[in-house]
Amino acid sequence: MDYEFQYLNKQSDFYVKELTVIWCVKEFADREMFPFFKEMDENPAYHKDGKVFVHEQVKTMMYKGGEMGLISAPFDYEMGGLQIPLMTQTAAYYILDAANNHLPGYPALTQGAAELIIHFGNEALKETYVGHMLSGVWGGTMCLTEPQAGSSLSDIVTKATPADDGSYNISGQKIFISGGDNNFTENVVHLVLARIEGAPKGTKGISLFVVPKNRPTADGGLEWNDVTTVADFQKLGQRGYCTTHLGFGDKEDCKGWLVGEPHKGLHYMFLMMNAARIAVGRGASAIASAAYYASLAYANERPQGRKLSADGKKNPDEQQSLIIEHPDVRRMLLMQKSVVEGSMSLVLLAAKYYDLIETAESAEEKEKYHLLLEMIIPIVKTYPSEAGLQAVNNGLQTLGGYGFCADYILQQYLRDIRISSIYEGTTGIQSQDLLGRKVPMNNGKALELLTGEIMKTLTAASQIQSLQPYAKTLGDKLKLTEKVLGHLMPFAMQGNYERFLADASVFMEYLSLVLIGWTWLDLGVNATKSKENGGSYSPDFYDSKLHTMKYFYTYELPKTSGLAEILLNTENITIKKENEPIV
Amino acid sequence: MDYEFQYLNKQSDFYVKELTVIWCVKEFADREMFPFFKEMDENPAYHKDGKVFVHEQVKTMMYKGGEMGLISAPFDYEMGGLQIPLMTQTAAYYILDAANNHLPGYPALTQGAAELIIHFGNEALKETYVGHMLSGVWGGTMCLTEPQAGSSLSDIVTKATPADDGSYNISGQKIFISGGDNNFTENVVHLVLARIEGAPKGTKGISLFVVPKNRPTADGGLEWNDVTTVADFQKLGQRGYCTTHLGFGDKEDCKGWLVGEPHKGLHYMFLMMNAARIAVGRGASAIASAAYYASLAYANERPQGRKLSADGKKNPDEQQSLIIEHPDVRRMLLMQKSVVEGSMSLVLLAAKYYDLIETAESAEEKEKYHLLLEMIIPIVKTYPSEAGLQAVNNGLQTLGGYGFCADYILQQYLRDIRISSIYEGTTGIQSQDLLGRKVPMNNGKALELLTGEIMKTLTAASQIQSLQPYAKTLGDKLKLTEKVLGHLMPFAMQGNYERFLADASVFMEYLSLVLIGWTWLDLGVNATKSKENGGSYSPDFYDSKLHTMKYFYTYELPKTSGLAEILLNTENITIKKENEPIV
Repeated sequence: MDYEFQYLNKQSDFYVKELTVIWCVKEFADREMFPFFKEMDENPAYHKDGKVFVHEQVKTMMYKGGEMGLISAPFDYEMGGLQIPLMTQTAAYYILDAANNHLPGYPALTQGAAELIIHFGNEALKETYVGHMLSGVWGGTMCLTEPQAGSSLSDIVTKATPADDGSYNISGQKIFISGGDNNFTENVVHLVLARIEGAPKGTKGISLFVVPKNRPTADGGLEWNDVTTVADFQKLGQRGYCTTHLGFGDKEDCKGWLVGEPHKGLHYMFLMMNAARIAVGRGASAIASAAYYASLAYANERPQGRKLSADGKKNPDEQQSLIIEHPDVRRMLLMQKSVVEGSMSLVLLAAKYYDLIETAESAEEKEKYHLLLEMIIPIVKTYPSEAGLQAVNNGLQTLGGYGFCADYILQQYLRDIRISSIYEGTTGIQSQDLLGRKVPMNNGKALELLTGEIMKTLTAASQIQSLQPYAKTLGDKLKLTEKVLGHLMPFAMQGNYERFLADASVFMEYLSLVLIGWTWLDLGVNATKSKENGGSYSPDFYDSKLHTMKYFYTYELPKTSGLAEILLNTENITIKKENEPIV
Repeated sequence: MDYEFQYLNKQSDFYVKELTVIWCVKEFADREMFPFFKEMDENPAYHKDGKVFVHEQVKTMMYKGGEMGLISAPFDYEMGGLQIPLMTQTAAYYILDAANNHLPGYPALTQGAAELIIHFGNEALKETYVGHMLSGVWGGTMCLTEPQAGSSLSDIVTKATPADDGSYNISGQKIFISGGDNNFTENVVHLVLARIEGAPKGTKGISLFVVPKNRPTADGGLEWNDVTTVADFQKLGQRGYCTTHLGFGDKEDCKGWLVGEPHKGLHYMFLMMNAARIAVGRGASAIASAAYYASLAYANERPQGRKLSADGKKNPDEQQSLIIEHPDVRRMLLMQKSVVEGSMSLVLLAAKYYDLIETAESAEEKEKYHLLLEMIIPIVKTYPSEAGLQAVNNGLQTLGGYGFCADYILQQYLRDIRISSIYEGTTGIQSQDLLGRKVPMNNGKALELLTGEIMKTLTAASQIQSLQPYAKTLGDKLKLTEKVLGHLMPFAMQGNYERFLADASVFMEYLSLVLIGWTWLDLGVNATKSKENGGSYSPDFYDSKLHTMKYFYTYELPKTSGLAEILLNTENITIKKENEPIV
């Protein structure tokens, strides 16, 4: 079996390169990932005698994936990469996630860990670690969470004490470490947040360290670095993707190497966070996408019930309808499609902004795409996770009783996607970020730029007669958004941040719908033009896009009316008052 | 261990009786059910060598439960029952469901099967079966679904051929049979829908049969009745509650006995359906209730993060807050409480109507409560199932990463409750029933009666100053409902039933919120009065009820605005047109 994309190089034509990557990934996903999806769920990763045992396809994913270039692709040619943009990488990983979401985390975290070393580590660290990681022979992880410090990273207590040789002695516990150990890769390289003794309290005293499970010895070998897998977490979903509890320095012999400058660890980590959050949104969209196609296939095959005739009755002599003929089933399918494709568009847009920051030719342009990316990131992470869960839930419902059964795959997608609204900052945290940081960012500049982009789409849509009603609706929602913010912002100006952010999660749901309304209008403009100009897909393809856009504007976007009403409330229902009875 | 309630009898005082039942059930649930809840999930019921093996507590549930009177309690004294009303039974089973929802189905289905025999069976059937079933020595099931006939019962093909001895030879397959077999009860008595040879097509040709797994012999023993457990269904949740695929008459030696008259089987079954649908709503409320208390306990213990100060920042020197202090967590808890208690109120109201039909002293009164019950039944089944799932989802989210872990119980509640919107008619089916049958029932009389009941609460609330704004809001929603129906009903009048019912599920969500708004206003009236009059609970108890009512009116009821906007759409988005591209 050969996947051609490792033969690509600097000389390869850009489009050949991009398409080859996507083609190879699709082949790999079909052959090596999807066939093992169900059995990885049924035989979860497990912890025994201090070791974590994972499914054999983890080895294939890391070794063959590494060989193909799945880990190295986004890096510079000098590092052995292909310099593919994040958009291509996102499209590629979307396919991997849809095929088997228990696997892509292993190479993706390895890539993320390598990226931190490449960006912020010194030459020695790069030389020692990066090559082995990009080839998939060594894995990588991110170690942030501790038992007492989940969403609140300022409370991290893992300790780093300077040693004589320039390294640090590390001691502490980390939990919820994805891909934290496995029985296949030679080594696992942990990127660990810890406090150097005497560091300032809070987020300003956290540093970043490379802490390998096995440390390189002078003779080129490896020796154990006192990193213990204390336990694993058995989970609702993503059961083939191991989640571990790690102990560092139980025997006082765990060495770590500082990445970059002291006390800047959280800053470095958060520079990677946008990509990590795009990845979560991508994964959730991909799972919801796979669930959509699974339920669509079922609906196209399953006969049940009959059409109502003009007297409101059914004729038992008539043949049963396929369930896809029933409006309620079509509603559930269209809901899924509108969520899945709306999410995917937003995720890819974020990746595009990410790439445009890299390729910007002026400081203003860089700043513009930076602000646009920052503005949409919390939604890019949250909407696919939250609406995606509801979409998969509709997918399961489409199968009726079979949807609840383990023999069918929908129940697994439902369990797998549920983590997305927790990973990398919960929906609550994302919502605080959206309303509390992003909306007021640079005096509202980020929101202003985003509104400008939406206005461009509105203008384009207004020039197409069939889209004018939708453009008008979206325009009205922008005005409603102004009204909502006009109600909320004064709380912040009065210093009442608790009240300002109390309904942040409702605002998240509200603004997400507006943004996805925008992506659908944009899809509508493109579908209309492509159909007129004889685009490369069939007319049905474009019609289906336009129909799904109409579904979104008829069934999803109107929910903003109720949400705005909630946001405009003048109560303080969720703010705890003195002596208030516990809810 | 003794549960006193088997010592109750006809002479017992009514309130002593009711309270004793509840007290005994609570004791039983604490001792015999909740401690086994997690292990029943982790060691699901399974099928091996044609037998189904279930957890040992199924034996306790059936035998001890039977001895206590859990199965017989609602029946007449003459049948060995206690004549407890459905309200008491509902409250009792609510406790059982909340403690361990994998168990109550065994006695509940046995009770339902016995009830069918008692109401419609001849004396011989009653004598042979009922005693053993009420004592829990024999189980019982309802066999409706077949592989090709799920929601569409008119397509049932299981065959009944008259035999010379007055019995029928049964042959066919039934799937999704809850409690269909177990390794403890001596026998399982199946109530089976089948067609007598030559019966009319569709729902008018279905008859009901008693088909025991083992049939009584002349000498008082039992012999196998050619009922085979072909397989079981492994499921997302309720894994301790076995779901089976049964084969009848594979060896052409399966006997069934007709219940009541031929071709009236579906009619008999649907006379039990209201109670069954109340039971599903009850079970969903109970699961959501248990999940609410589990997440509330966690929120009261888990420190994480800090309150925002007036500069919008957090001080790391400050102690961490308990998460229950954070508005977003309080929002999630209040949402749960409002759904759980709103649902429970509606479920108990349905049980009350059910009882009032029985005790009505005039035909008009009987008719009134019958129509009220019919009107609310689809919502009683659906709202606790759908909103309950979202409530449990918020419960899981409250625990962050721990919520996703198998060591915590929230993920189990999430999996368990998911069946509720499928059981006994999916949400789609319930919604068609609500809009297509109940709203137009008796020329709108049922809806008119319900509106009258709501108006009574509005009048009572209007007399309490603090409740006037809520009464006004609910009044406005009644007007909005008229507007929505004014838009939808003409489709039915034009004979366009497909369009009329296309958005039935959206209407279900809409009307559910209005109805739960009503139950909360009613709770508000009662809490205000009880607090003023020094009711038997603490002032905090009543304040918390009033606060949750306010939460519902501020955060849940406003969603009806968006839903009404959706319902008022003039499109035909979900109706399949000729040659329309497949979604």
